[in-house]
Amino acid sequence: MKKPMMLVLSGPSGVGKGTLGKRLIEEEGFGFSVSCTTRGPRPGEKHGVDYLFITREEFLSRRAANGFLETATVHDEFYGTPREPAERAMAEGRDFLLDIDPQGGVQVMESVPEAVSVFLLPPSWAALEARLRGRGTETEEKIQKRLHNARQEVKYLPRYDYCIVNDDLDEAWRELRGIVRAERLSTKRFLPELD
Amino acid sequence: MKKPMMLVLSGPSGVGKGTLGKRLIEEEGFGFSVSCTTRGPRPGEKHGVDYLFITREEFLSRRAANGFLETATVHDEFYGTPREPAERAMAEGRDFLLDIDPQGGVQVMESVPEAVSVFLLPPSWAALEARLRGRGTETEEKIQKRLHNARQEVKYLPRYDYCIVNDDLDEAWRELRGIVRAERLSTKRFLPELD
Repeated sequence: MKKPMMLVLSGPSGVGKGTLGKRLIEEEGFGFSVSCTTRGPRPGEKHGVDYLFITREEFLSRRAANGFLETATVHDEFYGTPREPAERAMAEGRDFLLDIDPQGGVQVMESVPEAVSVFLLPPSWAALEARLRGRGTETEEKIQKRLHNARQEVKYLPRYDYCIVNDDLDEAWRELRGIVRAERLSTKRFLPELD
Repeated sequence: MKKPMMLVLSGPSGVGKGTLGKRLIEEEGFGFSVSCTTRGPRPGEKHGVDYLFITREEFLSRRAANGFLETATVHDEFYGTPREPAERAMAEGRDFLLDIDPQGGVQVMESVPEAVSVFLLPPSWAALEARLRGRGTETEEKIQKRLHNARQEVKYLPRYDYCIVNDDLDEAWRELRGIVRAERLSTKRFLPELD
């Protein structure tokens, strides 16, 4: 008996979710999907790559049909993580990654209690601020907003199964890979029968 | 916040508990203790090294005082894992190893629900038999008895948190070390606060 896992990888904006998630997909064979949103594409964003850009009507109809693992509303626009790609991948025996904000992650855990959840923390608030500035793409106002959000979001940490402090990316990767490999040995997923 | 773990390492006789447990002690800093028994020492066995050899009276008095994490009776002699060394090591912040038979491990989990438990399996029944014979120290009757016990003991596997198939010792060690390191990142034990 070998069951795949749903992995919720979360943490504040700027903490390295995207980079570490990419390695799970490339090196550990995780499936993933893009989120749905009702907002319009920004310059350069592609349908099916950055988001699935859908209408409000479609969003509401999918939500009513329990089509999302979690949803959020930001500036009057809807965002949602579709349920179907995760369920399909796992039905095929494939682990599945959800790279998601901390509050959304808690919603997923409520609807999928067997999900494995990992919270990424920066080594300090100063380090997070430096990383957000280092991106060079955000206004001062947006940086301050992200830092404010981050301080709210760490309150969800105790709801998560594991915590990784992303001080050094290679070390954080080893820790994340270690968690994934240990979870593959959990008797919730792995109950071999002897010949 | 960083809390130590109690690790129950279990599995049938001959599966490699002793060898892997030794590496946890030497390489991962786990504390351990010897068990108590009321049977007499066999040739070469030393008090405090192989067992604490104690009287029936002392055993019963300790047991009445809740001094054991688990006890067993074999051929009318008592065996027990003392509670105090484990609690002392963990109060000092040290992880603690219990190398224990599968039924005893379940007793420990009942009295210490936060214990982490790992069940070691042989790759096959034939492999376990070969290992027991390879020791060259046991009579045919004892080997058959151990194999019979092993078939009963694997029924406890689903009660354990993790399962490792010990096919290759180095690979089993990497898996065990990975479980221990992942468990050190569990938010049950590790909840950092940011500066």
